[in-house]
Amino acid sequence: VDAEAAEAARAHDSQLTKPPGALGRLEDLAVWYRGWRGGERSEINAPQIIVFAGNHGVAARGVSAFPAAVTEQMVLNFQRGGAAINQIARVNGATLDVVPLALDEPTQDFTKAPAMEEAEFVEALRAGWDAVSETADLLVVGEMGIANTTSAAALACALLGGEAAVWVGRGTGVDDDGLALKTQVIAEGVALHRDSGDGLEILRHLGGRELAAMAGAMARARHLRIPVILDGFICCAAALCLERTAAGALDHAVAGHLSAEGGHGRLLEALDKAPLLSLNLRLGEASGAGLAIGVLKAALACHAGMATFAEAGVSDG
Amino acid sequence: VDAEAAEAARAHDSQLTKPPGALGRLEDLAVWYRGWRGGERSEINAPQIIVFAGNHGVAARGVSAFPAAVTEQMVLNFQRGGAAINQIARVNGATLDVVPLALDEPTQDFTKAPAMEEAEFVEALRAGWDAVSETADLLVVGEMGIANTTSAAALACALLGGEAAVWVGRGTGVDDDGLALKTQVIAEGVALHRDSGDGLEILRHLGGRELAAMAGAMARARHLRIPVILDGFICCAAALCLERTAAGALDHAVAGHLSAEGGHGRLLEALDKAPLLSLNLRLGEASGAGLAIGVLKAALACHAGMATFAEAGVSDG
Repeated sequence: VDAEAAEAARAHDSQLTKPPGALGRLEDLAVWYRGWRGGERSEINAPQIIVFAGNHGVAARGVSAFPAAVTEQMVLNFQRGGAAINQIARVNGATLDVVPLALDEPTQDFTKAPAMEEAEFVEALRAGWDAVSETADLLVVGEMGIANTTSAAALACALLGGEAAVWVGRGTGVDDDGLALKTQVIAEGVALHRDSGDGLEILRHLGGRELAAMAGAMARARHLRIPVILDGFICCAAALCLERTAAGALDHAVAGHLSAEGGHGRLLEALDKAPLLSLNLRLGEASGAGLAIGVLKAALACHAGMATFAEAGVSDG
Repeated sequence: VDAEAAEAARAHDSQLTKPPGALGRLEDLAVWYRGWRGGERSEINAPQIIVFAGNHGVAARGVSAFPAAVTEQMVLNFQRGGAAINQIARVNGATLDVVPLALDEPTQDFTKAPAMEEAEFVEALRAGWDAVSETADLLVVGEMGIANTTSAAALACALLGGEAAVWVGRGTGVDDDGLALKTQVIAEGVALHRDSGDGLEILRHLGGRELAAMAGAMARARHLRIPVILDGFICCAAALCLERTAAGALDHAVAGHLSAEGGHGRLLEALDKAPLLSLNLRLGEASGAGLAIGVLKAALACHAGMATFAEAGVSDG
């Protein structure tokens, strides 16, 4: 982070025509953003949203309310502009890229084997890394993958401990029997893989291609100094794998929202991030973080566009 | 409210390509909005923000951290595009109208007399009524007026009871001595006027021209079936005066945000509204509600723009 740019941003903010602190979190967002981007004040003009899609071996265990075929069906829906994230991207002036990852080859069922071989895992990480636009000035990553809340809950459970029941949620809406089965599947996977290594190794064993790709994209954004808005439970599980591999790896990210998926609040606590929005979403596909783009755009628009007390001839108290 | 349109909206929502309920509050917002607008599905294309400005006799008591001249200075700043709300309006595609109300004639000091004569009060209500565009499809009202958190706290205290100390806050940032004085001024005004009549009479005695104009604009919006997003403490105090005059008068409004001004949460409880955002703002000038425009636009964009399961060929579980 560019401490000088952040300091300059804080000093500039104190001159703007408002009582000190009156823009609350918008002020902190602007300072944080400028610290990562460095250089001159500017608005956010080129936000990029990437939705990665993958299929999961554990889907065959019946852990989701929807069949695995829905992953590919939804990819087509994204490509034709019919999903929620298409509308949210449009309203917020963001580009949307959709990256399906070997949908015909689900990962292995992690209750029996590592979800991905090393080569598969590296390929997925690289797909994420390569998907980030060098000209983006803000990145949001999201996912589509039937059964991926099972994978995310297993990652959280393996990295943060606690019973599987603490981390499991209803995802797209499983019933009570489905929830019990899902909890069992998570517990089996965690028991098998929890000691397999660092955050990235845990991601390879219990994650999925779309989760690995999200991690790769977030790492690339760090390299390019592109600030990131984290989405919900699944995105944050991928983020946690990075954070546990290299502390501070998510300093260039803010939490877009608190989702309705039960474990998300605890994941955000583990990441030490306070959510910008809390609208009871549980859709994934970057929808919550996509909504938060508007808040961040407004924060930077105020920071870059407001007059100072001196410019406006306003008494500063 | 058009129950048939709301019902049709709920039925349409259940067909969209997402798990039921997965868009959380966005779904409820879309149904509520369509209930008020009636007719066909459509996006929000013409949001209007109006900032009313007025001066307060109690400012002479020293209840604000800023001099009264700042009201007019900020009006010029709004007109030149240099304030926070100008940037927030631009980012959210909203028009911004600024309506200064007799800034050279502050209201009476309400510790000594009613803030407004009847004719002045009616003129302010009408200024609000007339400022609403008939072609707007969403309305946000905000305010600028040095000392108007004192007025808003007095209104809340008179209408909802409790000690003045419960309702007072630091506004633009008064120090401890200023806070004690402000509390005293509120208590004096409430003791003098609390039994003066219904919500509108209380508004005339303890409010200000910009608060009356906000009430007038919100009432006009109801008449025109234009949904409203409420801003912070001062806007909600004006809204409460309407609500206490005619229960349900704010059914066409949602709460845009929870501000950092201490009494705002209790005001929202009295209005039975849950805020969409909570970003620690305490600026006024419609800034919080202006940010929430983006959330409402996204809600309607999803509702109007998403494909159904049948259209997209997605299995619905």
